[in-house]
Amino acid sequence: MKSLTQNSIKIGILGGGQLGWMMILEGRKYPFAFYVMDEPEAPACKVADKCFTPDDYKKMIDEVDVVTFEFEHVKEEALQYAEDQGKLLPRLNTVELKRERWKEKTYYKEHNLPTPRFYIANDGEEALRILKDEFNNVGVLKQSRGGYDGKGQYFIKGDVEKYGFIKDMKCKFVVEEFVNFNYEASIIAVRDRNGNFKAYPPTFNYNEKGILVYNYGPLKDNRFAEIAKRLMDSLEYVGTIGIEFFVRDGEILINEFAPRVHNTGHYTLDAAFVSQFEQHLRAITGLEIGATELLSYGGMVNILGTDNVPLEVLKYGKVYWYGKKEVRKRRKLGHVNVVGSNLEDVKQKIDIIMKLIYPQGLDL
Amino acid sequence: MKSLTQNSIKIGILGGGQLGWMMILEGRKYPFAFYVMDEPEAPACKVADKCFTPDDYKKMIDEVDVVTFEFEHVKEEALQYAEDQGKLLPRLNTVELKRERWKEKTYYKEHNLPTPRFYIANDGEEALRILKDEFNNVGVLKQSRGGYDGKGQYFIKGDVEKYGFIKDMKCKFVVEEFVNFNYEASIIAVRDRNGNFKAYPPTFNYNEKGILVYNYGPLKDNRFAEIAKRLMDSLEYVGTIGIEFFVRDGEILINEFAPRVHNTGHYTLDAAFVSQFEQHLRAITGLEIGATELLSYGGMVNILGTDNVPLEVLKYGKVYWYGKKEVRKRRKLGHVNVVGSNLEDVKQKIDIIMKLIYPQGLDL
Repeated sequence: MKSLTQNSIKIGILGGGQLGWMMILEGRKYPFAFYVMDEPEAPACKVADKCFTPDDYKKMIDEVDVVTFEFEHVKEEALQYAEDQGKLLPRLNTVELKRERWKEKTYYKEHNLPTPRFYIANDGEEALRILKDEFNNVGVLKQSRGGYDGKGQYFIKGDVEKYGFIKDMKCKFVVEEFVNFNYEASIIAVRDRNGNFKAYPPTFNYNEKGILVYNYGPLKDNRFAEIAKRLMDSLEYVGTIGIEFFVRDGEILINEFAPRVHNTGHYTLDAAFVSQFEQHLRAITGLEIGATELLSYGGMVNILGTDNVPLEVLKYGKVYWYGKKEVRKRRKLGHVNVVGSNLEDVKQKIDIIMKLIYPQGLDL
Repeated sequence: MKSLTQNSIKIGILGGGQLGWMMILEGRKYPFAFYVMDEPEAPACKVADKCFTPDDYKKMIDEVDVVTFEFEHVKEEALQYAEDQGKLLPRLNTVELKRERWKEKTYYKEHNLPTPRFYIANDGEEALRILKDEFNNVGVLKQSRGGYDGKGQYFIKGDVEKYGFIKDMKCKFVVEEFVNFNYEASIIAVRDRNGNFKAYPPTFNYNEKGILVYNYGPLKDNRFAEIAKRLMDSLEYVGTIGIEFFVRDGEILINEFAPRVHNTGHYTLDAAFVSQFEQHLRAITGLEIGATELLSYGGMVNILGTDNVPLEVLKYGKVYWYGKKEVRKRRKLGHVNVVGSNLEDVKQKIDIIMKLIYPQGLDL
């Protein structure tokens, strides 16, 4: 390919949530066609060129040039088939780490990437025993499979008697130290097919009950990007990644990574020239990735479980409303991006928007 | 309306070119539905919720809450019908100034807005006579109707014998002094339903044969915004406007205005937080307009009459490819946005992109 505009690249996206929706909106300026695998009412399906039900995954994958995903826990057969056709990016080696927490954690350890101290337990009984023996009953039990947005995680702070039900659980667990962090942070980075790497500045994140509420940045610390580069190079990763960290007394520890565009990177739609979504599309289609320097301080507030978005919010930010069918508790329905002239300015706008959207406080 | 997201606003756009296309892409984050009047292969129709042929204009206008246009020379019956239904924004008084150049020029004069010296001629013969008597055969003859992108304009510099054919033209003309400008400039401004006004910083523009080739900014001079405010207030304008100027020895003169989003405002997609397109949608739907301060120095290069867009362009900018069916000489097929740390940086990137896209030079 010599001219960008003399061919159209067909991109298949597995999963049709808001991440796919933003990927398409950001990619519309390029001569790409977007095919999405999800139900027709999914946000991304509504802006796609073609929508395929999960049953039709083979048809979609056969028709496109490259396949990516907006959610790593999407139909496994579809991921496998796309990998077998040599079309999946990022590749299955990366997705596999996310299928089992113990694999992800072990990968960090083997690659000398900093992460909280952990043990692997084969069932609930062993998990509780390790918690007692190694962590004096203060720690986190995480089911190895199927956990995201705080699901399948138990934060135990001595009150172990409340968690007796875990004893009968037959699944694998990761048992982890409880990190009394100063703050949480994340970094969004991108790596292209030739191994070129770029990272946005990290951000300060505020999570509640396992869900991101808001984040803002930049957080100026090069160590995050160094870790991201080591992780991505070792995986031969292609695309955008999001890596979440705990910061404790100046020490940085990987909490987990997401092998895709990430909620903490939504601010790049406005505070950066090239967004995390466009970077992902550039990387997987073999195009040159763009600059990741911020144009401005920026941040984001999630709209969770409510459609109360007072008009006044527009004084301070831009609203991204995903157009989901139903308002449900804890559901990510949209977000508000803000920019500002310094961190305090951004944080103040976030505080105002929080009060406007959640006048009674957050209910997660 | 108290919450932005508890209602969906239906917006009708007359005309389906790239300006409508970007309006929709920028508006997709809001709970708006977009209906477009144009042929199905038009860029905006491809991303609209519904597309109506020009014959069906009444049906479209009846179904939507507010009607706007992306091109002022669109089907007159549709503009009139939308105005009659009280749905057209900006209103018909503004469009009417654009139907006849003599009305637009007279409006400037009556409102004491600076514009090049001009006379109105009832036909070609009178126009040539005025050119001789008042301007010593050096000036610009502009047909009063139907001119844009340099069409219907004759720049005569003494070589009047070449323009004998004008003598037989029976249409009205505006005969204008030839402005030997130092540079051309423009400003993008927005005014909401309550009369609130905001303007982006002006930009330096480079036109060739009546078509914008590139522009960049900010140009720091408050006089442009003052003129924009006076013009918009006097028209009770609602929406985004683009006003083009000549700058001659420090004096600024309005060349013309466009009652819509404008090619010289495309850079606001990337160098500003809220783009000219989003501002227009906010203004016509009764939402609060956003900040117009730039996040960065920025600029734009038009892709005219070629689909040669080397991949290297992505090193310097973001490509907006409109997806038009055919490459035609002088046709606007896309544009490239750039940002930079100062004017020189932006201008250097523009120069590089110009050489990449037009290796043999521009052919307009």
